[in-house]
Amino acid sequence: MNSFDTGDQKISAPLGESEPAGSNFLSRLGRWWGRKGEAEAATKAANGVAHADGGVPLATRVARRQREQLRLCFDARLTDGAANAAAQAWQAEYEAAGEATRRAMLELLAEVASSSGEKAADAKGEGKGDGKGEAKGEAKGEAKADAKPDGKGGHSGLTHALSSARIRFFKRLAALHGQRGSSACGLHFLIQLRADMLRWQRRVPGLRVLDDDLEALFSNWFDVGLLELQPITWDSPASLLEKLIRYEAVHEIASWTDLRNRLDSDRRCYAFFHPRIPREPLIFVEVAFVPEMAANVQTLLDEAAPLEDLRRVKWAIFYSISNTQAGLRGVSFGNFLLKRVIEELQREFPKVKQFATLSPIPGFADWLRKQDADAVSRALGDKRLARWRERHGEAPADGAGWLAALSPEAPADADPLTRDTAMALAAHYLVRERHQALPADPVARFHLGNGACVERLNWAADLSRKGRSQSCGMMVNYLYVPEALDDNLARLGAGNPRIGRSVGKLL
Amino acid sequence: MNSFDTGDQKISAPLGESEPAGSNFLSRLGRWWGRKGEAEAATKAANGVAHADGGVPLATRVARRQREQLRLCFDARLTDGAANAAAQAWQAEYEAAGEATRRAMLELLAEVASSSGEKAADAKGEGKGDGKGEAKGEAKGEAKADAKPDGKGGHSGLTHALSSARIRFFKRLAALHGQRGSSACGLHFLIQLRADMLRWQRRVPGLRVLDDDLEALFSNWFDVGLLELQPITWDSPASLLEKLIRYEAVHEIASWTDLRNRLDSDRRCYAFFHPRIPREPLIFVEVAFVPEMAANVQTLLDEAAPLEDLRRVKWAIFYSISNTQAGLRGVSFGNFLLKRVIEELQREFPKVKQFATLSPIPGFADWLRKQDADAVSRALGDKRLARWRERHGEAPADGAGWLAALSPEAPADADPLTRDTAMALAAHYLVRERHQALPADPVARFHLGNGACVERLNWAADLSRKGRSQSCGMMVNYLYVPEALDDNLARLGAGNPRIGRSVGKLL
Repeated sequence: MNSFDTGDQKISAPLGESEPAGSNFLSRLGRWWGRKGEAEAATKAANGVAHADGGVPLATRVARRQREQLRLCFDARLTDGAANAAAQAWQAEYEAAGEATRRAMLELLAEVASSSGEKAADAKGEGKGDGKGEAKGEAKGEAKADAKPDGKGGHSGLTHALSSARIRFFKRLAALHGQRGSSACGLHFLIQLRADMLRWQRRVPGLRVLDDDLEALFSNWFDVGLLELQPITWDSPASLLEKLIRYEAVHEIASWTDLRNRLDSDRRCYAFFHPRIPREPLIFVEVAFVPEMAANVQTLLDEAAPLEDLRRVKWAIFYSISNTQAGLRGVSFGNFLLKRVIEELQREFPKVKQFATLSPIPGFADWLRKQDADAVSRALGDKRLARWRERHGEAPADGAGWLAALSPEAPADADPLTRDTAMALAAHYLVRERHQALPADPVARFHLGNGACVERLNWAADLSRKGRSQSCGMMVNYLYVPEALDDNLARLGAGNPRIGRSVGKLL
Repeated sequence: MNSFDTGDQKISAPLGESEPAGSNFLSRLGRWWGRKGEAEAATKAANGVAHADGGVPLATRVARRQREQLRLCFDARLTDGAANAAAQAWQAEYEAAGEATRRAMLELLAEVASSSGEKAADAKGEGKGDGKGEAKGEAKGEAKADAKPDGKGGHSGLTHALSSARIRFFKRLAALHGQRGSSACGLHFLIQLRADMLRWQRRVPGLRVLDDDLEALFSNWFDVGLLELQPITWDSPASLLEKLIRYEAVHEIASWTDLRNRLDSDRRCYAFFHPRIPREPLIFVEVAFVPEMAANVQTLLDEAAPLEDLRRVKWAIFYSISNTQAGLRGVSFGNFLLKRVIEELQREFPKVKQFATLSPIPGFADWLRKQDADAVSRALGDKRLARWRERHGEAPADGAGWLAALSPEAPADADPLTRDTAMALAAHYLVRERHQALPADPVARFHLGNGACVERLNWAADLSRKGRSQSCGMMVNYLYVPEALDDNLARLGAGNPRIGRSVGKLL
């Protein structure tokens, strides 16, 4: 199983490191994507040099043309033929462009967006008998989707906000239906556009305010009520399956054989799709059925393992959940996925009564590395610390030392004390460590925010290089008891998350 | 063709009589549905008596239970299992209820909505270690779809507005995916719910503010970018075709034979569908192909007429456009329909170069009836008035008299003077009569707002009872020249709409 030790940049989907200050408690739970600007750091190396001077500028002639196209897209009514042709042309140009040109196009977009917004605000008055001005007025009205100028007053800012020229620009793109074979439908293009916007928003002024409107639109257009939960099987189109290989973010898919094992008749895979983008999964989960709660991922991914007898299995294990669209960051539907999947499984397999994940602990090593000796001692408690000293003499001098001591070359052969110590620290990290009152670990934050509980820690559960480097090879089971989710969440809110018995013994 | 003289209550889709004061000029063009509360009058007779006392109240026990269910639906986070079960139960109860009970349920809904909104605003602060309160907090955060509490300030009210408990209530319903066979999916249910809300909003306090949020959500969920244009043919499922018969609002479909004629191989029918509600057309248009611009609807609907030779036709005629969902009033996608259909037709029939409607003039008779003698005289002009007096002695005393004089028993046999006089008045009505600076006739408002022009008036063009009573049997062709639409619209804005030559001679 050397397929996992690639040490690549992929991270588990629910990562969301830097939470904003000041938002209220549970609102931050279950948030799937990280905050804006996070991907920034990762792409700095790639883009930093090319754009050190602030981006490769467009040729003056090109910039002038694009500026005109964009102004039309911002100002004209949504049914305006010329503006829609301009939008289509701009999309095609963007899709064909390389990184540097795209960034320059986004800079121009941000520039036009800031001025068009003001213009639209000016054009708010009555028609003045001037066709051009009034066309703008209509566009505004259209974007407002039937605004109510009856003086009833500001009970809802939604309608008002929709009136902005920015919203109109995005709605215009969304309405493009991909006439030409090579071009994505407008909605799909907007996802890709937003991924670029997020990558560059710290360095391109004006992108962020533009993105705020796009994110708000996305949160409606990708409302969970509009999404379809669909199974993905070995019978699915290869062009779709290929995307699973590309998007899998937890346990890399090494080959088509590996994929076939994950889609075999004793497995299930479900994805949320947007009906307008039928061949593009937005998020997917891989499910294995086993007789006991799964303790390691090696067994689950063993291509040579025999098929499970589905009549005898009692457990459904969610062993990989991946978001696929960087451009949908901040749009939450991940927390609906597992509940919907559990409903589906309960229907198909009435005998399967137990639902749990086998999840990575992506933040453990980073956390431990940053602790000082005292913090680790407090986390371990006197008894475990004494036992360690008894065996090893002195304790490591700091968290980094502890991490080294708890990362044996061959975890499976580690002595019981190393195991117990590492698992005690992991249990502390998952249950006690908070970041702004939420579980510090992003995957824990996601699953506890769904109402799952920290059921069991597993040693030597992920022996890939990635698994060993991020969590000393440990994994955790989050248990989903459908009827207990609401109650568990309330307990978490009260600072007292539910944990499994074996986890309790580690604390 | 006596199928049309039913004199029933159906009205042509683009009706939108009472435009709000103060909205800007062209923003009101092309609006498809009428303003809120319009259907009110029509249903007054039906509901007035039963609800004269303010509605049949729910039993105290039932009201208490529903109040609790609804509070949960407003307050709990969107993934809360109990709240979602409550929403499902409430939906099922509503769907099973009769008129009086539904109205009482809506009254209760409005009551809970007004108090829950305030509560949610109170719960905005940080978590207070109280599980219940914090769960509310999370719900808020979820509904905000990743709110940005980073102090960047109010650049967009959208995110903020989304946080309201009302929005959460509707999003919760939209996310229900219709587990039980009898129940509609949540989105479809919400359309039906809103239709009821619109009917009763004048008499049930609090419904209107609730509806404002639902309308805003709908304008995103039914954004034209999310809709699919699909052909409907004789090969379509009968359960779908049956709906065309039910929903056809312009020229009633008399029988399956009539429908078959409209879907024959020389015809086309297109509808917008929402992908989450696949068997429910939202709006549809019927298209006939003819060698010349169609002058009457009798020929188009003649079931005995031979098939047109599609290799020889030059004109595509849109002879019926119907909205189907009262619950989507105010959500504009109608003005995208014809442009999309023209694109489709250009692709399938490159030789068809001309696109026009054959449309009713639903407001003509009502308008004429209200004019006094002077107004009619001014509209006719001295020459035509003199010719009338020459033949008939004195002119009618008022508009009602004119209407009677211009409504012969057998329009096809009417003398040329009657014809010319009626058509001159109709031309004046369509081109000159304005309501808040927009064409007074609702169908004219729609098509001119799309950029079409008033091309030709047709006498004896709709001999059904409805056609004769609303427009003396006249119909009008609106011409769609794809490359002229934007320009025509600008001319309309400048108060100088483009008209056909024959219409110019009538003015």
